[in-house]
Amino acid sequence: MTSKHEPVLKSHRRPEDVSTTVVDVENVRFGDGSYPVIAGPVAIESEEQIVGVAVGVAQAGASMLRGGTYRAENTPYSFRGLGSEGLWMLEKAGHEAGLPTVTEVIEHGHVLDAAHHADMLEIGPDNMQNFSLLQDVGKARKPVLLHRGPSATIDEWLMAAEYILAEGNSNVVLCERGSRTFDPRTTDTMDISAIPVVQKMSHLPVIIDPAPARGGEDLIAPLALAGRSAGADGLNVLVHTNPTMALAGNGSQLDLSAFGRVMDRLGIPSLRDEIDRIDRELIKLVGRRLQSSVDIARIKAMKGLAMRSPDRELELIEEAQDDARRLGFDPDYAAELMTIVLEYSRRAQQAALGQQE
Amino acid sequence: MTSKHEPVLKSHRRPEDVSTTVVDVENVRFGDGSYPVIAGPVAIESEEQIVGVAVGVAQAGASMLRGGTYRAENTPYSFRGLGSEGLWMLEKAGHEAGLPTVTEVIEHGHVLDAAHHADMLEIGPDNMQNFSLLQDVGKARKPVLLHRGPSATIDEWLMAAEYILAEGNSNVVLCERGSRTFDPRTTDTMDISAIPVVQKMSHLPVIIDPAPARGGEDLIAPLALAGRSAGADGLNVLVHTNPTMALAGNGSQLDLSAFGRVMDRLGIPSLRDEIDRIDRELIKLVGRRLQSSVDIARIKAMKGLAMRSPDRELELIEEAQDDARRLGFDPDYAAELMTIVLEYSRRAQQAALGQQE
Amino acid sequence: MTSKHEPVLKSHRRPEDVSTTVVDVENVRFGDGSYPVIAGPVAIESEEQIVGVAVGVAQAGASMLRGGTYRAENTPYSFRGLGSEGLWMLEKAGHEAGLPTVTEVIEHGHVLDAAHHADMLEIGPDNMQNFSLLQDVGKARKPVLLHRGPSATIDEWLMAAEYILAEGNSNVVLCERGSRTFDPRTTDTMDISAIPVVQKMSHLPVIIDPAPARGGEDLIAPLALAGRSAGADGLNVLVHTNPTMALAGNGSQLDLSAFGRVMDRLGIPSLRDEIDRIDRELIKLVGRRLQSSVDIARIKAMKGLAMRSPDRELELIEEAQDDARRLGFDPDYAAELMTIVLEYSRRAQQAALGQQE
Amino acid sequence: MTSKHEPVLKSHRRPEDVSTTVVDVENVRFGDGSYPVIAGPVAIESEEQIVGVAVGVAQAGASMLRGGTYRAENTPYSFRGLGSEGLWMLEKAGHEAGLPTVTEVIEHGHVLDAAHHADMLEIGPDNMQNFSLLQDVGKARKPVLLHRGPSATIDEWLMAAEYILAEGNSNVVLCERGSRTFDPRTTDTMDISAIPVVQKMSHLPVIIDPAPARGGEDLIAPLALAGRSAGADGLNVLVHTNPTMALAGNGSQLDLSAFGRVMDRLGIPSLRDEIDRIDRELIKLVGRRLQSSVDIARIKAMKGLAMRSPDRELELIEEAQDDARRLGFDPDYAAELMTIVLEYSRRAQQAALGQQE
Repeated sequence: MTSKHEPVLKSHRRPEDVSTTVVDVENVRFGDGSYPVIAGPVAIESEEQIVGVAVGVAQAGASMLRGGTYRAENTPYSFRGLGSEGLWMLEKAGHEAGLPTVTEVIEHGHVLDAAHHADMLEIGPDNMQNFSLLQDVGKARKPVLLHRGPSATIDEWLMAAEYILAEGNSNVVLCERGSRTFDPRTTDTMDISAIPVVQKMSHLPVIIDPAPARGGEDLIAPLALAGRSAGADGLNVLVHTNPTMALAGNGSQLDLSAFGRVMDRLGIPSLRDEIDRIDRELIKLVGRRLQSSVDIARIKAMKGLAMRSPDRELELIEEAQDDARRLGFDPDYAAELMTIVLEYSRRAQQAALGQQE
Repeated sequence: MTSKHEPVLKSHRRPEDVSTTVVDVENVRFGDGSYPVIAGPVAIESEEQIVGVAVGVAQAGASMLRGGTYRAENTPYSFRGLGSEGLWMLEKAGHEAGLPTVTEVIEHGHVLDAAHHADMLEIGPDNMQNFSLLQDVGKARKPVLLHRGPSATIDEWLMAAEYILAEGNSNVVLCERGSRTFDPRTTDTMDISAIPVVQKMSHLPVIIDPAPARGGEDLIAPLALAGRSAGADGLNVLVHTNPTMALAGNGSQLDLSAFGRVMDRLGIPSLRDEIDRIDRELIKLVGRRLQSSVDIARIKAMKGLAMRSPDRELELIEEAQDDARRLGFDPDYAAELMTIVLEYSRRAQQAALGQQE
Repeated sequence: MTSKHEPVLKSHRRPEDVSTTVVDVENVRFGDGSYPVIAGPVAIESEEQIVGVAVGVAQAGASMLRGGTYRAENTPYSFRGLGSEGLWMLEKAGHEAGLPTVTEVIEHGHVLDAAHHADMLEIGPDNMQNFSLLQDVGKARKPVLLHRGPSATIDEWLMAAEYILAEGNSNVVLCERGSRTFDPRTTDTMDISAIPVVQKMSHLPVIIDPAPARGGEDLIAPLALAGRSAGADGLNVLVHTNPTMALAGNGSQLDLSAFGRVMDRLGIPSLRDEIDRIDRELIKLVGRRLQSSVDIARIKAMKGLAMRSPDRELELIEEAQDDARRLGFDPDYAAELMTIVLEYSRRAQQAALGQQE
Repeated sequence: MTSKHEPVLKSHRRPEDVSTTVVDVENVRFGDGSYPVIAGPVAIESEEQIVGVAVGVAQAGASMLRGGTYRAENTPYSFRGLGSEGLWMLEKAGHEAGLPTVTEVIEHGHVLDAAHHADMLEIGPDNMQNFSLLQDVGKARKPVLLHRGPSATIDEWLMAAEYILAEGNSNVVLCERGSRTFDPRTTDTMDISAIPVVQKMSHLPVIIDPAPARGGEDLIAPLALAGRSAGADGLNVLVHTNPTMALAGNGSQLDLSAFGRVMDRLGIPSLRDEIDRIDRELIKLVGRRLQSSVDIARIKAMKGLAMRSPDRELELIEEAQDDARRLGFDPDYAAELMTIVLEYSRRAQQAALGQQE
């Protein structure tokens, strides 16, 4: 569908039959209808800190790790980030937690280095109209997360994206993060209507960042839910292992337990929850298999049929190994497991038949 | 939970164990966790128009009917409403559609008359700081729907509510409808974060009105969904049978079919859907009753037991009449229905037994 | 000159050859190129207070007295004004200081009473879109001071004026008082460009009110100067004899000495300055008269001419009395003064001639 | 005087006895109480265009020439400037018109080159929080003109200046150019109160730029006057020889005659006016000299004194040559002029004496 208000957007024009461009960042997909969550601290402070956050947010169900090492701070006397050293820490933390990474660049000199270590580059709200930098990340051919400036109109934001697209880089994810208004109760005021408006004007995915509202968990959770309901393609959340001691971004970062509660309210399962669920499913399946094999044994005994031959067991193990190969895990693991399953199956059959006698 | 920023709100303070005051407008409840929808035109134009909208929105699942007859218009040359004549039309339309009603008052002289004909009084955004009028509706002891002004802070809005509460009227429902900002893509920008912020500061229910965004169905539907996800206690939607010919509010009113689609996306069943469902349920039950009675007849016949006596049938009819009285509908209706049911039951039993013979 | 952006303003259209409508409030004229200053407290607190302010601001050169007795306050727990009792105090204070008066009305019931006691009615920013009240003051046929709402566009403001004009009352003075923006350094931000923009669109005079900036004397003085340079037709300043003890408007009122300094920077002479100047002028004239009369006496003596006869002196006194009548003051005052002047003149002539001898 | 709201500004603190730092750009001084005017086009388009503007604005009384060659444009499809080629044109135009120059830089790579060719570097509103670039211009040790971002608070703006000051470059001139607000009648709304607020908080000079209001001459003239009355230390005006054909900035540039009228309303004399005035003064002096010499000749003739000797004439010519050397112009010019003056003096004396005879 085309908006009546559509500006002259050369690259933005959405094909008739496609609703959104899907931007892939490793295994994470923005724009496919899922709601991936990017989480991490404002600033990387140490290897220990970023690895701690990475493992924690991965555990809670996050899809990507964020962390700043080149910091755009309003005053020259604030913590300005660890610079290129932080990039190594971010890469390591992402690797340990199994999450792709995103980091902000604020000048030409950062782009190549950041693109080497991270999976996505971030343009912060201060630099939304730093047109040289937009061209630089356009040339870097890495996916880009483009924040809306606090007083940028939607058209200006899309035109900033156009600078990146015009360099041939179409992997742009937009991030709505609130506009500067008059109400002192929120630092910046989330413009929720920007999501449907952008989706009528542009093919690019658009996520939300509720941090600039400065409201803590009580505000981030409802905004995260509202954003998803309004059609957002993902969420950006600031998380720190110890927000009150953070070197930057005080007041806008959640601790890991608050982040966990936000994910709960979003209905996104933590890894622990997911594993617990699968374990229970596994045990249940094993129990059903056992019962079935006993039932079959009884029927065979009743009807005087032969029990399973060792050849048949080998076949079953080989089939399990084939499945493992197809699913991408070690066939030996499958063989070992299957052997145990068959062993206990046999024992239970014998016990059952022995009881019958 | 208490906000650190909480202003001095004498009547607002929420008891520890109560989350929201529930405001009742006839059978509609704001603040009980439901999401009632108020719908209707900007301005009442004729009896035919308001009855048409009323029946249409009721059919689509709306909970309340709105309609303006005293109009706050920016220019003295616009349609300013039908005045007190419109109040009779609104009352009649609400009665025909079975919906409670709400209408705006803009001066002292309107309040008594509007309170006589409508079930709730509305204070529009222009009058949020018309303190004399706030006191007038406070004294009227009717529930009040209080819109936030387009540049009012949340604190100013709560203080305006305080004027009504201070007169002893605690039935105030707040309505977030967007703030004036700089982006030309939306006329006023919905402040979605106002919902959780208000709910930390005040015990009053808060609903949303996406109309001032001026975005049509494509914007109203996602905002309605987002509002509910953020915790809003209801929705206000402008609906007109023929928006393009409306005397007021062009550009912000949906027609009935667009309104129906918005309600669909909210998952609120229309009355037709509900009735279809019940009809199908009724037919299914009737079928099951028929089959059961035939089964019973066969068993009785097999076992040589007596068929049901006319006395037993009278008892069944009397029980149905008692049930009808308890549920609030005409016992004769129940008796008539039951007689038919029993008649067909008998025929089916005879047919079944005759076949058997 | 006509603006390209001009909206449809039925009454606003300015004739080709007229730049501004002049609004007269007793002897004060808005729109004639002068820069009248309205001064007075936010709220009238007592007769003593308002008379004290009135006499003080008149002394410092103010043209009109303002004072609120019906108060539009954000909370119901603030001082809401003395009501109709305050109107008598304002009238008395205006009379004592010789200044016309202006006072705010906030509801229908105030208009007649306020129009009886004050010379101009004020519509505050909260009520700029209280359309019923605009019609009420339109009917009252008193000059109206119409403040711009803190988030009203210029077009909305002119349309609010149109409500008053449409009732046949063309004596409207607009008041720019700052818009709500994001900068915490000023409460409301003066929109200085509104002055030239309004003057291209409307024939109405427009004054400025720097009080909502909440900046004290250091901000009010430069804004008052800037407003005049931008073409404003006057100034509104909040003044209280003791701002720190005021019952309302703390933080936005100047004390009398600060007000005096602002008037000094505007180059508006205080009454005291004016009198000092005239006194000096008087003494200088008296001295010159004395010298001239001595010179004449000498010449006459040299030339043997006759000195002034008593008849000639009577003629001079009668001429002075005629002048006094024409200028509107007591002829006896003139006669008495003239007698002394002539007496000293004679003495000096005699002394001079005696010395000569 | 120190503001109660003063933020922690390490370099900003103003000594008790100093009101403003004076920033010198060649012979132009910002902050000394004068009101220098910077004028020139948004974009340099050709040598002919920039030289034409330069000569024209110099003629009209401008103090500095501006011109953009690295352009920050909202869309990648606009004219982005001539790049380093434009710097040569700007330097040449400044040289021809006798005006120092200022040009915008938008990335690290521009700074050295621009600093080589221009006398002052400009940071545009889009880059106010491009902190890397602020540090770059801080290191360049050229005076910097720092625009306020359209939604930057005053504190953020001063902190951006702090980035430049922290590099040891204290030659920063602030430029207030309007904030983004809601009124469509002006694109950005001049925050006139920023001038006195900044002057209480910072020692840096602050000028205004009325162009972003997009109002043409009718708005620029009153804003320029208001800015000076509010205490601004200068003015920035966009001027183009043919605004309607400009490659950039349509709608915000004045043509030379409109610029001349603005300068007239500011009371700044154009060069032509100045010369006319001096010419008239010269002719008047020449006339008075002639008359005096004739008078002297008559007196000498009456008293039988000798006329001036050729030696005395040579002395007068030598004195004139000395004066010329001291004032920095060619002594031959002075000698030639003086010879003519003496020649005509002699003739007039002879004519006068001949008539007498």
